[in-house]
Amino acid sequence: MEIKHVLVVKFKESVSEEQIEDCIKQYGKLVDLIPSIKAFKWGKEIGMLNLNQGFTHVFESTFESVEDVIGFATNPHHTNYSSVLMPLVEKFVLLDFQPAKV
Amino acid sequence: MEIKHVLVVKFKESVSEEQIEDCIKQYGKLVDLIPSIKAFKWGKEIGMLNLNQGFTHVFESTFESVEDVIGFATNPHHTNYSSVLMPLVEKFVLLDFQPAKV
Repeated sequence: MEIKHVLVVKFKESVSEEQIEDCIKQYGKLVDLIPSIKAFKWGKEIGMLNLNQGFTHVFESTFESVEDVIGFATNPHHTNYSSVLMPLVEKFVLLDFQPAKV
Repeated sequence: MEIKHVLVVKFKESVSEEQIEDCIKQYGKLVDLIPSIKAFKWGKEIGMLNLNQGFTHVFESTFESVEDVIGFATNPHHTNYSSVLMPLVEKFVLLDFQPAKV
């Protein structure tokens, strides 16, 4: 089983590129701290279709079960990280889903 | 090179499960009609963390270049599909990004 935990973010205008880079780096470090994260990828909106509603960054982590996502959400390493990230964020969407083919 | 084209959707309340299933199936058919789509996956929000801001479905297609995404966006098979999908959608976010590891 594979569960994707996808966070889509718009940072506040006051947030610098350095702060965003640091957020990405710190998220990546969670992979070492929380073994239930099986993979982590991030991406920045390329900005060609302009249908991103202001959202610019995607953070995608992969888990093996719903329980592992709940464990991640409540893990102190993650809640500490969230308390640093969230004040920098103007809006976000967080989705958990099991990817399927048609 | 890999470009992810991710559509996050909230369907209108009037839209039935059957209509949503049909949207997923029709998106899947685009893979056969548009060879530049290298992969297609979809997922439904599991709904455990309740931070999805009403969005419920993710449609993720994979391309090999920005040009291929632009070709897809303007392909008549895709624009026909969009004209069926979009009237069913209350809100959406569309992001194109190159997935990266930390």
